[in-house]
Amino acid sequence: MAQDSEIKLNRGLREIYFDRTETTFIDGSNGVLEYRGYSIHDLAEHSNFEETSYLLLHGELPKQEHLNAFDEELRSQRELPEQIFPIIEAVKDSHPMDVLRTAVSALSAFDPDKEAEWDDVEATFRKGIRMTAQVPTIVAAHYNIRRGNDPVGPNSDLNHAANFLYMLDGELPSDDAAQLMDKDLVLHADHGSNASAFAARVVAGTKAEAYSTVSAAIGALSGPSHGGAAENVMQMAREIGSPENAAGYVRDLLRSRTPVMGFGHRVYKSEDPRARHLREGVRRLSQEKGEPEWYNILEAVVEAMSPYARRGVHVNVDFFAGVIYYLNGIPQDLFVPIFAIGRVPGWIIQVVEQYRRNILIRPLLKYTGGREREYIPISDRG
Amino acid sequence: MAQDSEIKLNRGLREIYFDRTETTFIDGSNGVLEYRGYSIHDLAEHSNFEETSYLLLHGELPKQEHLNAFDEELRSQRELPEQIFPIIEAVKDSHPMDVLRTAVSALSAFDPDKEAEWDDVEATFRKGIRMTAQVPTIVAAHYNIRRGNDPVGPNSDLNHAANFLYMLDGELPSDDAAQLMDKDLVLHADHGSNASAFAARVVAGTKAEAYSTVSAAIGALSGPSHGGAAENVMQMAREIGSPENAAGYVRDLLRSRTPVMGFGHRVYKSEDPRARHLREGVRRLSQEKGEPEWYNILEAVVEAMSPYARRGVHVNVDFFAGVIYYLNGIPQDLFVPIFAIGRVPGWIIQVVEQYRRNILIRPLLKYTGGREREYIPISDRG
Repeated sequence: MAQDSEIKLNRGLREIYFDRTETTFIDGSNGVLEYRGYSIHDLAEHSNFEETSYLLLHGELPKQEHLNAFDEELRSQRELPEQIFPIIEAVKDSHPMDVLRTAVSALSAFDPDKEAEWDDVEATFRKGIRMTAQVPTIVAAHYNIRRGNDPVGPNSDLNHAANFLYMLDGELPSDDAAQLMDKDLVLHADHGSNASAFAARVVAGTKAEAYSTVSAAIGALSGPSHGGAAENVMQMAREIGSPENAAGYVRDLLRSRTPVMGFGHRVYKSEDPRARHLREGVRRLSQEKGEPEWYNILEAVVEAMSPYARRGVHVNVDFFAGVIYYLNGIPQDLFVPIFAIGRVPGWIIQVVEQYRRNILIRPLLKYTGGREREYIPISDRG
Repeated sequence: MAQDSEIKLNRGLREIYFDRTETTFIDGSNGVLEYRGYSIHDLAEHSNFEETSYLLLHGELPKQEHLNAFDEELRSQRELPEQIFPIIEAVKDSHPMDVLRTAVSALSAFDPDKEAEWDDVEATFRKGIRMTAQVPTIVAAHYNIRRGNDPVGPNSDLNHAANFLYMLDGELPSDDAAQLMDKDLVLHADHGSNASAFAARVVAGTKAEAYSTVSAAIGALSGPSHGGAAENVMQMAREIGSPENAAGYVRDLLRSRTPVMGFGHRVYKSEDPRARHLREGVRRLSQEKGEPEWYNILEAVVEAMSPYARRGVHVNVDFFAGVIYYLNGIPQDLFVPIFAIGRVPGWIIQVVEQYRRNILIRPLLKYTGGREREYIPISDRG
């Protein structure tokens, strides 16, 4: 915290590289995203959440037998410890992200590996599997508890995405709805050192254990500058109401220098490569549900924003995600928790990377206040 | 996440300045620490936790009437919402830092300002006062609940430090014990962008609200590379057992390249200016308690480490803190929670600084893995 006027400030740590990674490659200028070297487009079209999670955690696409074992392990860990339900009940009137943060923090007390040392990487993987499996159960249990319903227990016949939709209302989801949710989770599974993964790494850098890292990540994701955009896009689409209002709405926002929700990204200066997969989902789902106006409103917003694409402001993944959730009947305040459901494997592998070559993450602040002030006794303060 | 071999890596963000601060000045080369321009030595000798907290939060030393009002507010907010006790009960077998992280996260559900926007700074200050007041109550309640005792309610006749000691066992602490605890809290109240405050700032950078930031900070502080040293120094002092064993113990550690607990600091390359105030406390308290060997063991370790002072490895604040807590009858796993009790005002003011000139804190990772791998269908994987 030197005072030297020569100090270079890196506000927001923009363009600062703080470490290496072998997990996710992002080329923001050209709109490229790869998990472990595999294009997000191949994974969105051909993979699923279980396989993608295995890939992120282990670095290779699994053979069938390894995928089966991994999937079986995930399915077997979905039940919450019974002590978690009264905790969810106690805080049920909070935003679901606050409930999730508290419940994940509490889960640490019941993990069979709770006594493991921070550098026991296998224990961190096991904790990571449990968190991946249990985060959807927490979100769905809270959704039911706050409505006065009993939680719906997990269904081990269903995959990760379908089981989450099932636990919301006890109904088997359509194949289309389950597949779109699965794709959404694949697209959100990792994204480099975004603010939540970075928060998890900062906590891991002190050698804190995995539940501390993931609850910090959930806290970071709860902020509207990170996870909040999907929630806000739906709000915007409602306010616009009809495609022909989109251009005027966008113009008014830009005149008052208000950012348009779901556009722009710290890293992407071309189109977010995840967006196209959800765009197609919105188109199909809004037709199926007989509500094509949502797709039309979003397309009208994209059209109205097209002059700004030259300046690097493009549509991002959040823009289409919210409408998909809405069309599946999911309330707005669950949009960010769904993002969290997808992101758990990414947080875990980044925490493991941090543990493996650990260092305390401790940057500096430049001090700009007064110096060497005289301490005057309280009776003499004028 | 470019792959360019020219990318400069800043591992641990060492020497990287990420923003300005007007709160705490640290000159690590010369061992200078000032809160709001006031020397830590003046504050340790003449101030107290309430006045220092006011100073950190408001930037100026208070007049008597403002200090009285601030103190009154702190005293009036110590009681926990009744819903927090069963949550502490549910997770009581965990480390007290895990319990504290969960309980603070849960407190967000009951805060009267829970609906406030992230940029309502006055609401953040009110939340900060509540967290400052309630964190000691959580730590003491858990301490009693896990022993099978009823929690001891706060005593509004006592100041912050004395009330914490009182809530542990329901006994009025001696003036000496209360004053030493008060000084310890003053010395821990802020320390720039240490890993826990930085974690809080990363979370605040997404516009997440204050309980998310402080629960992330608690998670970071729970790591042995940050808060854990005080706990470990006491462990080391026990293992050494007697002053004449200190030199051999230290030599064996250094031969096996194991760091000596309580020595060295990322920022201080000369003596940690906080250490001297606790050193004197250990000397006096260990004599009063008729256990002078603890002071003698620590001094023998300092003597054995003196050749390393030339290389910038000096005693830090944690070195003496643990023995003070031990001599006050406090169990080892409460040492880091006491650090947290002191640090809440620092976390809060840094979060407020972050909110006031907010920016997403989002650095980059250099990708070193494979690229453009071909997705092979699972049935064809050899």
